[in-house]
Amino acid sequence: MVRSVRIVGASGRVGSAVAARLRERHVDVREEGAELCLLCVPDRAIAEVAASIEPGPWVAHVSGATPVAALAPHARRFCVHPLQTIVHGRGPEQLDGAYAAVTGELPEALEIGFQLAWLLGLEPFVLADADKPLYHAAAAFASGYLVRLHRIAASLFEQVGAPPRGLVPLMARTIENNFELTGPAARGDWATVEAHLRALEERRPELVQVYRALAEATPA
Amino acid sequence: MVRSVRIVGASGRVGSAVAARLRERHVDVREEGAELCLLCVPDRAIAEVAASIEPGPWVAHVSGATPVAALAPHARRFCVHPLQTIVHGRGPEQLDGAYAAVTGELPEALEIGFQLAWLLGLEPFVLADADKPLYHAAAAFASGYLVRLHRIAASLFEQVGAPPRGLVPLMARTIENNFELTGPAARGDWATVEAHLRALEERRPELVQVYRALAEATPA
Repeated sequence: MVRSVRIVGASGRVGSAVAARLRERHVDVREEGAELCLLCVPDRAIAEVAASIEPGPWVAHVSGATPVAALAPHARRFCVHPLQTIVHGRGPEQLDGAYAAVTGELPEALEIGFQLAWLLGLEPFVLADADKPLYHAAAAFASGYLVRLHRIAASLFEQVGAPPRGLVPLMARTIENNFELTGPAARGDWATVEAHLRALEERRPELVQVYRALAEATPA
Repeated sequence: MVRSVRIVGASGRVGSAVAARLRERHVDVREEGAELCLLCVPDRAIAEVAASIEPGPWVAHVSGATPVAALAPHARRFCVHPLQTIVHGRGPEQLDGAYAAVTGELPEALEIGFQLAWLLGLEPFVLADADKPLYHAAAAFASGYLVRLHRIAASLFEQVGAPPRGLVPLMARTIENNFELTGPAARGDWATVEAHLRALEERRPELVQVYRALAEATPA
């Protein structure tokens, strides 16, 4: 059981939510002599910050794409990546119900990683170190690219004078309906798909490529 | 005020939700002699079904991409497109809170279109006939392509042994947070974006094009 944690980067988006959640759970969040040092810093800073920590405590980071070996020279090390979009201006409740990818080399490392995830309110699963970049690319498709789809659709709505706020119930319901496909592609209505392409070619040619690429990217 | 409606296609996804909602609102849904004939049929069938209706009543369709002129020879005509994904196995509550694009040539047509939308529980806005294909392409980006992003991400999760159900809280929160961008693109962390591309090139090369196309499709 983790009883004391030092957080490096406690003012960042993830760090502040994590620090608040640990305090809620009566974990001793302190600067010195903690059992676990948790790095909530940008990916590119992880190796340098890890190297500056005197060996002894467990050391972990919260990056989804960075390997566990970035925590060298520490041997008692792991990663816990909250699979969630965390923003400033909300609290630790952001972690509730989200999943977390736990990566570690030693069985004990996975055990403490799972314990930390549960303590944070996350649902942990094991992720192999070599799989982290592909896993994180999937998270980028699910979140960053969902933002981009919304921006594309909202810009088209603005162009035709339709209210972009009308997209929100549509997108939320698409998720709520467990991603059941409706619309022209579901009906095999290729004439409508062609009408979309003609309209984009004429009025938003820069979107033709992404429209086609999404149509063609069908996972087996 | 619309008091009697004939629905053609009342067993379809949209038709059955619309019929149930009209009955809830005490509209007389009947086969003969209705004030309004509402075509809830596939896009490609609209013109033929419209042509088979004896002129007299208002005639409307619910397609987002098809022009109002598909309702020829009728002059008292309009379209109301519910901007929502409607599935079988749910009821008229699916319409609640959704927006609706209303298209019509005559001022009276827009008026009756707005009245019908409100009766259905929809929030109407006016859409020009010439803008329907671009508007509907936007809806396809928002809903059909959201389904596709989820399939891509879920297939990557399966490949690395991560639970696809973990994507649901991430995607739902991305919407709930008003599409605030987080992750590597928001941080300007291009090393991570490059790591995604390397992993995709090695293990899912068919997804490289869509990853790049989405990265490059930035609306002004």
